[in-house]
Amino acid sequence: MHIEKEFHSLKAKKLIARNPLAKEAYDEIKEAISAMTRAINNAAKKSNGVSLLKEPFYQALETKGWSREKPLEILSVKGGPIDVFKSFSNSFNVGIEVETGNAASSHRSLNKLLLGICNGELDLAILMMPIHQLSVYLTDRVSNYEEISPYLRLVEQDPFIVIGFDVEEYSSDVPCLPKGTDGNSKRSVKV
Amino acid sequence: MHIEKEFHSLKAKKLIARNPLAKEAYDEIKEAISAMTRAINNAAKKSNGVSLLKEPFYQALETKGWSREKPLEILSVKGGPIDVFKSFSNSFNVGIEVETGNAASSHRSLNKLLLGICNGELDLAILMMPIHQLSVYLTDRVSNYEEISPYLRLVEQDPFIVIGFDVEEYSSDVPCLPKGTDGNSKRSVKV
Repeated sequence: MHIEKEFHSLKAKKLIARNPLAKEAYDEIKEAISAMTRAINNAAKKSNGVSLLKEPFYQALETKGWSREKPLEILSVKGGPIDVFKSFSNSFNVGIEVETGNAASSHRSLNKLLLGICNGELDLAILMMPIHQLSVYLTDRVSNYEEISPYLRLVEQDPFIVIGFDVEEYSSDVPCLPKGTDGNSKRSVKV
Repeated sequence: MHIEKEFHSLKAKKLIARNPLAKEAYDEIKEAISAMTRAINNAAKKSNGVSLLKEPFYQALETKGWSREKPLEILSVKGGPIDVFKSFSNSFNVGIEVETGNAASSHRSLNKLLLGICNGELDLAILMMPIHQLSVYLTDRVSNYEEISPYLRLVEQDPFIVIGFDVEEYSSDVPCLPKGTDGNSKRSVKV
């Protein structure tokens, strides 16, 4: 997998250009994306699950000291955690949401990251999702980069990156990724 | 029905205090809320539909010149309309989303209204939903005011109002509101 489309706010651009910790975070994310499957079965629409799609990404980040399911203090009373988190040098906090729920769910992920920034818990936030072309072959109604694009101006004043990922190859010869029971249903209980 | 809980951003407070058109809009909304059912059947959880709950509100606003399903220019390529809209004196534009989808859907409604403000298409935005106590007796997983509350700081810089409505009476003697087929399912196709 690789980054096919992306949005960097002005603040995110400046951070990556000037702050070595931000650059390190972005490089680790790019590398972890390359650990995800390089080919997807395109014999039929909606035929690949999303849980196993994300797993190699999470595992690659864990080897670099990232941790999963980070609760935000501001959502401590009610609200799900952020998917992946790392505090660089105990001073620069980065949060990632890997969105494989539906379009509405991607708005919740975006707002959760924004809330983390507002509350000083995140210094850089990354929202990741498949591009539309890839989403067609994933679980039904999975959100895609193009769908959230009109809303990017809501994050343009914040240190925010949105990434649309894609595979290197579409092929009917590779096996489908199995569908778990924890894809959309797991997301839908988050608030 | 009446307003049980509400949030007014500083900008919204100032508008209602100083701009007669904003005051008129808010008064019309309050009056339309009072046209909604005053009692709900509480014999069983999740037993009342939401479509008919909203209908008297919409109809009351229509008699005051509001219109339903207003598309935003900024979402013209892709994206659903705003639930209710009125341009006061062709100069002060107010948009309302009446949220009866799930929690994720309420984030999309909030972001849609914010986008309308960002793009200069709305001068005042109102997000309405049941309070938690009422939502318990409505369609499963309907979002509620308390659930979105931690996110209110995302709208505090904008002319934004969030309203949590409630009935006057909970009773096992009143008929249940019938469930349509266009509640959550209708919302879920909006982007």
